Amino acid sequence: MDSGRLEAFSDGVFAVAITLLALNLAVSGPGLHHPALAAQLADHWPAFVAYAISFATIGIIWVNHHTLFRSFARVDRTLLFVNLLLLFFVVSIPFATATIAAYLRAGGADASLSAAMYQGVFEGMSISFALLFWRGIRHGHLQVALTPRQGRQAIIRFGIGNLVYIAGIGLAFVSAPASLALSGLVAVYYIFEQTQVRAPASPDQSGQPRPSGPA
Amino acid sequence: MDSGRLEAFSDGVFAVAITLLALNLAVSGPGLHHPALAAQLADHWPAFVAYAISFATIGIIWVNHHTLFRSFARVDRTLLFVNLLLLFFVVSIPFATATIAAYLRAGGADASLSAAMYQGVFEGMSISFALLFWRGIRHGHLQVALTPRQGRQAIIRFGIGNLVYIAGIGLAFVSAPASLALSGLVAVYYIFEQTQVRAPASPDQSGQPRPSGPA
Amino acid sequence: MDSGRLEAFSDGVFAVAITLLALNLAVSGPGLHHPALAAQLADHWPAFVAYAISFATIGIIWVNHHTLFRSFARVDRTLLFVNLLLLFFVVSIPFATATIAAYLRAGGADASLSAAMYQGVFEGMSISFALLFWRGIRHGHLQVALTPRQGRQAIIRFGIGNLVYIAGIGLAFVSAPASLALSGLVAVYYIFEQTQVRAPASPDQSGQPRPSGPA
Amino acid sequence: MDSGRLEAFSDGVFAVAITLLALNLAVSGPGLHHPALAAQLADHWPAFVAYAISFATIGIIWVNHHTLFRSFARVDRTLLFVNLLLLFFVVSIPFATATIAAYLRAGGADASLSAAMYQGVFEGMSISFALLFWRGIRHGHLQVALTPRQGRQAIIRFGIGNLVYIAGIGLAFVSAPASLALSGLVAVYYIFEQTQVRAPASPDQSGQPRPSGPA
Repeated sequence: MDSGRLEAFSDGVFAVAITLLALNLAVSGPGLHHPALAAQLADHWPAFVAYAISFATIGIIWVNHHTLFRSFARVDRTLLFVNLLLLFFVVSIPFATATIAAYLRAGGADASLSAAMYQGVFEGMSISFALLFWRGIRHGHLQVALTPRQGRQAIIRFGIGNLVYIAGIGLAFVSAPASLALSGLVAVYYIFEQTQVRAPASPDQSGQPRPSGPA
Repeated sequence: MDSGRLEAFSDGVFAVAITLLALNLAVSGPGLHHPALAAQLADHWPAFVAYAISFATIGIIWVNHHTLFRSFARVDRTLLFVNLLLLFFVVSIPFATATIAAYLRAGGADASLSAAMYQGVFEGMSISFALLFWRGIRHGHLQVALTPRQGRQAIIRFGIGNLVYIAGIGLAFVSAPASLALSGLVAVYYIFEQTQVRAPASPDQSGQPRPSGPA
Repeated sequence: MDSGRLEAFSDGVFAVAITLLALNLAVSGPGLHHPALAAQLADHWPAFVAYAISFATIGIIWVNHHTLFRSFARVDRTLLFVNLLLLFFVVSIPFATATIAAYLRAGGADASLSAAMYQGVFEGMSISFALLFWRGIRHGHLQVALTPRQGRQAIIRFGIGNLVYIAGIGLAFVSAPASLALSGLVAVYYIFEQTQVRAPASPDQSGQPRPSGPA
Repeated sequence: MDSGRLEAFSDGVFAVAITLLALNLAVSGPGLHHPALAAQLADHWPAFVAYAISFATIGIIWVNHHTLFRSFARVDRTLLFVNLLLLFFVVSIPFATATIAAYLRAGGADASLSAAMYQGVFEGMSISFALLFWRGIRHGHLQVALTPRQGRQAIIRFGIGNLVYIAGIGLAFVSAPASLALSGLVAVYYIFEQTQVRAPASPDQSGQPRPSGPA
C-alpha cells in the first residue's frame, strides 16, 4: 500500500487544523459595552501568542511528517491507525489553543491547567510521531536503512522533545506564561535547527528522515 | 473514469469533518459566572467521550474507504453519487456528536433521542458503505474478483456492523450512556480487528478490500 | 498548464463548503429556557431540508466539475479565474443556506428575500459553470471536439438549468417554501438524470463532458 | 524533494481560508429585536465588500503560488518554512476580514486600525511571497533561469504591490473606506492584468513564473 492517500488525508487535517486556529482571534464589538479595538487587541495578547506558537508547531510537525513519509517505501494498516493517533492530537490543538488563550490571564489553577493541557496535547503528538517513526523502522518501511549513528541521533532528538514537553507540563503549575514561552522557544529552536546551512558531506543530507521537530 | 479525484474530494470531506469535531470541545469563560476550568472540563465529559468515539469512527471509515477504492479499477457516475450519500452521513457526524454531547446528561427522552440520532447517522454511513461495496462488485469495478469465501466474510462483517448500530438505536431508549458506550466498543473492536497480526497465507492479505469497519 | 492543482484546490473548496453546511444544524440547549429536543428538531425543519438540498447541489456541481476538467487537455490563466468565480458562488452557499433556514418560517418579505438569495447563488454558480464550459470549447481546451448535436444538447441543458433557477427567484416572491421545493426537485432530477442506465451506443458515453447538473 | 506535498498542503490551507471567509456573512435573527432581513443585509455591506475583496486576493495569491511552484524543479526545507510564513498570513485573512467588516462603520480610530490591520496582513503575505520568489531564484530552484529583463519586471511588480499595500496602511488612518477600496482596486487590477490577451511572441508566455498578483 503506498502512502499517497494517507498523506493527502493527513495534509487535509493539518490544513484545516492550522486554519481553524485563527477563528479564535475574533474580537467582539463594536458597541457601547465594548472597549476600543486597540484595547481589545492588547487585552487579547495571549490569543495572538498562542496562535503563533500553535501555527509554528503544526507547521513543524507537518514538515516532519512530510519528511518521514517521503522515506517510507510502503505503509500498512497499523501505520494508518498510528497516523490517526497523531492526527487526533493535531485536531485537538485548536481546542487547547483556545483554552490557554482564554485562561492564561485568569491566573491560578485555571491558568496552570490550561497550560498543562496545551503542553499535554503537544506531548501526545510527540509520542505519536515517535511511534510512527519506530514502527516504520522496525517493520522495514524505510527505503534506506538508518545507520547506527542516525538511529542514535533520532533517539536523542525524540528524547529531548519529549523531556521538554514534560518539563513544560510541570512548569505550567509554577508559571503558566513561562510554560507557554517554553513552547514558543521549542518552535523557534526547531525552525532554525531545521533550516540551518549544513556542509554537503553531512549524513543528514542523505535523504533520510530527519524527524527533529516537536515530535 | 479513474478514482483519483473522488478520493481527493472524499479525503477533503473526511479531513474537515474529523477536524470540526474538536470545535465542540470549547469551554466558556473565564468570568464571574463560570465555574473553575477543572470543574467545567469534568462537567463536559460527554463531549470528550463523544469526540473520541466520533474521531475513531470517521478514522475507521476512512481506512475502509481507502482500502475499497484502492481495489477499484474504475468508477462510474452512479458510484460518484453513492459516494456522496456516504459523505452526507460523514458530514452529519459533527452535528450528531455535538447534540449527544449536549443532551446526554439531560437524561430522559432528550438524551435517548440524541443517542438514537447518533447511532442513526452511523447506521446511515454503514448502509451507504455497503451500497458502495455491492455496487462495486456487481458492476465489475473490482480489479480482482472476490472468492465466494471472501464474499461470505464481507456479508457477515456488514451484517454484524448493521445489527450493532440498529441495536444501538434501540438501546438508546433504554440507556443513552450505554448506547454511547456501545459505539465506543464497536470502534475499539474494529481498530484491533484491523490491525491484528495475521498469518502470511491469510486470504485477507491478497490485496482485496477488507471493508470491516463501521461500514 | 495541466489542471491537477486547479482540481485539488477546487476539491478542497467543495469539501470545506459541503462540510460547513452541517454547522448550521446545531440546536441549542438543554436548559430551562429550551423546549424538548424533539420539538427543537421539528421546529428546525427548514435547516434540515435546506441542508439536504445544498448538499445535493454542491455534490452535483462537483460531479460536473470533475467531468468537465477530465475532458480538458490544458487550462490557462483565464480559466483559473473563471473557476474562482464558480468557487465564489460555491463558498457563498453555506451563508445562503443558513439564511433561508433561519428566515423561511418568518414568512413575508424576509422569507421571500432569503429564498431569492438562495436561488440567486445557485444561478450565479450555474452561469459561472456555463462560462467555464464555453471558454473551454472556444479556446480549444477540450481533448475531443464536441459534435454539433452534443453542442446543442449542452446548450439545452444549460438553458433549462438557468431558466429554472431564474423561475425560482421569481417564485420566491410568491411562495418561499415553493421556491425551496423547486431547488430540491432540480437536484433530484439531475441525480436521476445523471445516473440512469443508458444504451451503450449513446453518444453521451463517449467520454465527452456531460455538464448537465445545476450548472 | 519535489513540491507535490507542499502544494497539496498549501492548497488545503488556501481552500479552508477562502471558504471560512463566508462564515462572517451570517446575519442574526429573525425575531422581535432584529430589523428586517433586507435592512440587515444593507447594514452589513462592509462584510460583503470585504468578503469579495479577500476572496479575490486569496484567489490571486493562489494563482501566483500555483504558477511559481510549477516552475520550481525542487524545494528544500528552508522553502517549506518560507511557504509556512506565507500561509501564516493567508490563515490570518479571515480574522482581518471579520475585524474590518465589524469596525469599518464604527469610524474613528477603530475603523482606521481595522483597515490598517487588513492591509498589514496583505503586506505580510506580499513580503512572504517575494521571499519565496527570491529564495527560489538565488538557490537555483527554477527549472529555467530568468532573463535579466524578466528579473527586472518581477522586481517592478513586487515593488508596486508592496508600495500599494504600504500606502493602504497609511491611507487607513485618513479614511478606512478609501483604504478598503484601494485593496479592491488592486485585486481588480491584478485579475485583469493577468488575464489580458498577449501577443504570442511575448516573453511572458515562455512558461516562466509571472508572480504579478498581490504578492
